[in-house]
Amino acid sequence: MIGIGVLGIGYWGPNIVRNFNVHPSSKVVVCCDKRNERLDFIKKNYPAIETSNNYKDILKRNDVDLIAICTPVNTHFIFAKEALLAGKHVLVMKPMTSTSAQAEELLNIAQQKNLKIFVDHTFVYTGSVRKIKDLITSNELGDLYYFDSVRVNLGLFQHDVNVLWDLAPHDISIMHYFFNSKPESVIATGAAHINNGLENIAYLSVYYPDNLIGHIHANWLSPVKVRQTLIAGTKKMVVWDDNEPSEKVRIYDKGIDVIDSASDVYNLLIQYRSGDMYCPKIDTTEALTTEVSRIIDNLNGIDTYVSTGEDGLMTVKILEAAQKSIKNRGKEIKL
Amino acid sequence: MIGIGVLGIGYWGPNIVRNFNVHPSSKVVVCCDKRNERLDFIKKNYPAIETSNNYKDILKRNDVDLIAICTPVNTHFIFAKEALLAGKHVLVMKPMTSTSAQAEELLNIAQQKNLKIFVDHTFVYTGSVRKIKDLITSNELGDLYYFDSVRVNLGLFQHDVNVLWDLAPHDISIMHYFFNSKPESVIATGAAHINNGLENIAYLSVYYPDNLIGHIHANWLSPVKVRQTLIAGTKKMVVWDDNEPSEKVRIYDKGIDVIDSASDVYNLLIQYRSGDMYCPKIDTTEALTTEVSRIIDNLNGIDTYVSTGEDGLMTVKILEAAQKSIKNRGKEIKL
Amino acid sequence: MIGIGVLGIGYWGPNIVRNFNVHPSSKVVVCCDKRNERLDFIKKNYPAIETSNNYKDILKRNDVDLIAICTPVNTHFIFAKEALLAGKHVLVMKPMTSTSAQAEELLNIAQQKNLKIFVDHTFVYTGSVRKIKDLITSNELGDLYYFDSVRVNLGLFQHDVNVLWDLAPHDISIMHYFFNSKPESVIATGAAHINNGLENIAYLSVYYPDNLIGHIHANWLSPVKVRQTLIAGTKKMVVWDDNEPSEKVRIYDKGIDVIDSASDVYNLLIQYRSGDMYCPKIDTTEALTTEVSRIIDNLNGIDTYVSTGEDGLMTVKILEAAQKSIKNRGKEIKL
Amino acid sequence: MIGIGVLGIGYWGPNIVRNFNVHPSSKVVVCCDKRNERLDFIKKNYPAIETSNNYKDILKRNDVDLIAICTPVNTHFIFAKEALLAGKHVLVMKPMTSTSAQAEELLNIAQQKNLKIFVDHTFVYTGSVRKIKDLITSNELGDLYYFDSVRVNLGLFQHDVNVLWDLAPHDISIMHYFFNSKPESVIATGAAHINNGLENIAYLSVYYPDNLIGHIHANWLSPVKVRQTLIAGTKKMVVWDDNEPSEKVRIYDKGIDVIDSASDVYNLLIQYRSGDMYCPKIDTTEALTTEVSRIIDNLNGIDTYVSTGEDGLMTVKILEAAQKSIKNRGKEIKL
Repeated sequence: MIGIGVLGIGYWGPNIVRNFNVHPSSKVVVCCDKRNERLDFIKKNYPAIETSNNYKDILKRNDVDLIAICTPVNTHFIFAKEALLAGKHVLVMKPMTSTSAQAEELLNIAQQKNLKIFVDHTFVYTGSVRKIKDLITSNELGDLYYFDSVRVNLGLFQHDVNVLWDLAPHDISIMHYFFNSKPESVIATGAAHINNGLENIAYLSVYYPDNLIGHIHANWLSPVKVRQTLIAGTKKMVVWDDNEPSEKVRIYDKGIDVIDSASDVYNLLIQYRSGDMYCPKIDTTEALTTEVSRIIDNLNGIDTYVSTGEDGLMTVKILEAAQKSIKNRGKEIKL
Repeated sequence: MIGIGVLGIGYWGPNIVRNFNVHPSSKVVVCCDKRNERLDFIKKNYPAIETSNNYKDILKRNDVDLIAICTPVNTHFIFAKEALLAGKHVLVMKPMTSTSAQAEELLNIAQQKNLKIFVDHTFVYTGSVRKIKDLITSNELGDLYYFDSVRVNLGLFQHDVNVLWDLAPHDISIMHYFFNSKPESVIATGAAHINNGLENIAYLSVYYPDNLIGHIHANWLSPVKVRQTLIAGTKKMVVWDDNEPSEKVRIYDKGIDVIDSASDVYNLLIQYRSGDMYCPKIDTTEALTTEVSRIIDNLNGIDTYVSTGEDGLMTVKILEAAQKSIKNRGKEIKL
Repeated sequence: MIGIGVLGIGYWGPNIVRNFNVHPSSKVVVCCDKRNERLDFIKKNYPAIETSNNYKDILKRNDVDLIAICTPVNTHFIFAKEALLAGKHVLVMKPMTSTSAQAEELLNIAQQKNLKIFVDHTFVYTGSVRKIKDLITSNELGDLYYFDSVRVNLGLFQHDVNVLWDLAPHDISIMHYFFNSKPESVIATGAAHINNGLENIAYLSVYYPDNLIGHIHANWLSPVKVRQTLIAGTKKMVVWDDNEPSEKVRIYDKGIDVIDSASDVYNLLIQYRSGDMYCPKIDTTEALTTEVSRIIDNLNGIDTYVSTGEDGLMTVKILEAAQKSIKNRGKEIKL
Repeated sequence: MIGIGVLGIGYWGPNIVRNFNVHPSSKVVVCCDKRNERLDFIKKNYPAIETSNNYKDILKRNDVDLIAICTPVNTHFIFAKEALLAGKHVLVMKPMTSTSAQAEELLNIAQQKNLKIFVDHTFVYTGSVRKIKDLITSNELGDLYYFDSVRVNLGLFQHDVNVLWDLAPHDISIMHYFFNSKPESVIATGAAHINNGLENIAYLSVYYPDNLIGHIHANWLSPVKVRQTLIAGTKKMVVWDDNEPSEKVRIYDKGIDVIDSASDVYNLLIQYRSGDMYCPKIDTTEALTTEVSRIIDNLNGIDTYVSTGEDGLMTVKILEAAQKSIKNRGKEIKL
């Protein structure tokens, strides 16, 4: 039985509590928040879980193996560091830290102390993303050309981070999961339309080796909510529309074939393929349930994909580079 | 009666012929193409129109006031130059020229000889674009925040230009028409997935004064056809979906209000507005019919919007800058 | 303060409890169910509410003014009758009873004892339906032509009633609310594809005076979920798509004008109108919250629309006639 | 080489001319219309085709093997009869005749004279319908449950026939093609909202053996254009949306399984299946091209599906019964 401590019972924390609590191999033993009304919420719904408004109380408990850090981003580093130094594994919400230096420091500590860092890139555990990953792994899509994601809606403006730090961690972590390759550089543009200087619209391009490119449009000021991702490969192409109630993932037997025998490049013969489209049945298990299950498996030595501190670091590096690029009007930032 | 000569009877030329021919104040007097079978097409359908496979024949005719140049892009400059030097007004297909230097030279000649250059930015004459322009002019949208356009589909790969030169002139000319402002700089990214070095996917950001930003995604390698443009203003927001058979333009009474009285910028209070949406009835007149009518009005001294050589130059400048930026991985190119 | 007793804490009962409990002028004093685990659910979530597994206990309480009957349909009559005889107002779930004779008996008892019967036709309290009703009342739609509703999906097959008794009460009560007119007759067709004889697909036509017609398609065996209603009037037309996450109600300025001056009916001149479309902002208050509030207002003598026993009777009459018509292959059943 | 005469060069006639003219084994030799401007149209576009405004001229020509009758419905019978009596095969537009008695008389004459009658049920030759038919024939859908079709839009009101005679022949002929079974009876309802007594909205149910049911909603007074057909079988279900530019046919691996071992019918255990969905690539050949090709094959003794006079008769019988049922408020009309 793995003992879980949860720090921060805000919007997302209760979901973490619920999922670790129902898993047969884990048990939430303590929750911590400085707001007593949030602790009351835990007491009412989970009488068996202890509560505390002092983080130190969690750190010194022997029955806590992993601490889930569900606090605002700018506190992730300090809390995760204390947890690691106290000998606890950590699960950190996304984005992992405010800077890549912080993420690297956490990774170093974890390595020295032989502890694990998990990052809550929830979307990579959804049925849709796992299905698309399977298509990539089994080479059904062929070699990949690009990843293009649009994540726009009206609001909710954040006061401490721009729209990329708010929305793009989802897309970056998904793209990273799909590409499984080290990005080379980042170019980003954007604009801040209210006078706090935080971009509310941003466009992010990420260059990968082998001509692979990723692009993300994140926007708090769109009249319509769009959650659409295009992924094209040499064999098949995917449209993932997360707004669709069903049929979220559409797989197109479409593409081009380049006839190489042409004598010169200006006369390349391109043939278009267009066959059937299909929507595979998607596993509707709650993403967090899958995530929790895999984290526990991982801690128990079972080999399965989990989003680690390295993945969290990569996401933060890209966000950091994007911010720098925006402030320098699209300057390429090497990673 | 304005006499029209048409050079190039390929895909688009016949539409030019048809529209000038039915207008009561213009008359197509001669068509020119080096391919006899294209001239036969004209002879069969328009027995009253003369044909020639020698451009010089058109240039020296006194009954030709304007020459429409419907040939491949890389020939626009030489044919338009000859037409202007022969004292003819010109209507050039989009994009106007292959380089901005060429466009500038044409503008200089036209000015010296007191002739007009029109550029066939057809989309700005569609009912949808004219309706949105009306909303902007009447301040129904308020001050604009951004223009975001997606124009993607599978194929048709061009052999001489990349996807931006092929698809983006539409979006650039529309954006330019809406913004009516001089852009500052361009940042573009993209990738060429077949080995002729021409990008088949590209992302273009254009910075305008006053924090205004434009973005265009052009793509020949998408499994689905998307033609969607978002335009947000301080008062209202627009979604224009040109794939919709009806209800192409949706106007949302949505937006944010920033409460300025907050003591510090980190605590700006943002309120969200969300009211009715409406789809105005859109004039379905063929865009080219409106364009031809306005060109004739313009030549007759009537004040109306037409897309001129200056607009054509601006589009070419942006395309040229975009190409340079892509080749330099997102380097900002000042305009 | 109006005291509420709730009978039946199944799927819908808890929503009834929750809504009456938060209203400032009502208070749920007792809940009754024969299943102890359902009473435990109430005890845990609402410690202040008493529980009982004996309906007689509720009937004799002086602090109960209204009893909400949330039990299976075939028990509505007996429980409602006992409640009325005990001097309680009743709120009965839909459909009100299994037969129109039962509904009529309840109405008689209520009249004799000066008590109120409310029927939980929840949909008439939704923002969408109230908005459409406003359009009808204000004559924005003009005189109505027809009501056409499709309510289809895969499952959930009921074991005791056919698809009309399961799904159509929604549409019938909405249509009845919109038309506010006494229907003349019913024609229905359908088929039972599994061997219990209960129709899983059915089509219901209802004739109203003045050439008004209603039609409902109810189906448990459709691959896709459709919730779409068309309402046409002489001035405007409405499409209500309840599957849409937003923009559920679309109002079309479309229609026909008949030019009466034609000399003979075979040459009637019909003109088509097609103008703007708009989607009004829809109140998203939970329907049951509005319903509970109006029931309490009604009991307090405030004039507002509520769905009464008469409305419940009309719905049952139509369902009863439909069933008879289906069994007689479309025979017209007068109402 | 099969010689074709075409009678009636209105809206549809030119398509018939074009398709027979390009087929390598047929040749349009003469066209007939009483309107000289329509004959001029033929002369201009097809100089090799002779024209006449006297039907007798066609009838007596030896080089005409088949006459295509593209005139208004109420003239189909007389023209087809004359053609058959003159020894010509006929292709009659839909609906075949104004009454079933007329259709039967034509069939008798054809049989006596050993001639063929084809009926232009164009939709059965579309790629979508042929694909669905293949799924039925190969038993991929399993046994069929129902056919449900919605064909609604605003206008075009006809002056001589009601909405069923105008729109439903498409759906009836498709349903007949799919079911390949003799219908038992028809029930229809509808309303005429303008004072010429012709229904502008109608609902048609058709009962087939083995619990199979068909339903068609035809409507000239809908704010939106809908062309959607649902077909459910024991194994799979189909949604055909003809408004979709691509992905017109969606095939759902969905359905129910009834567990028969239940001891009584009221406790039948129903299990729901929900698997992948796919959209097969649909042949986009023009339907009329396929139709013409098959007619010629049929005349040349090649075995292939064509829509015959028997199919035309069945469609007319159903329409006739539907009209009778509407006028008698849903009375079942046996076929």
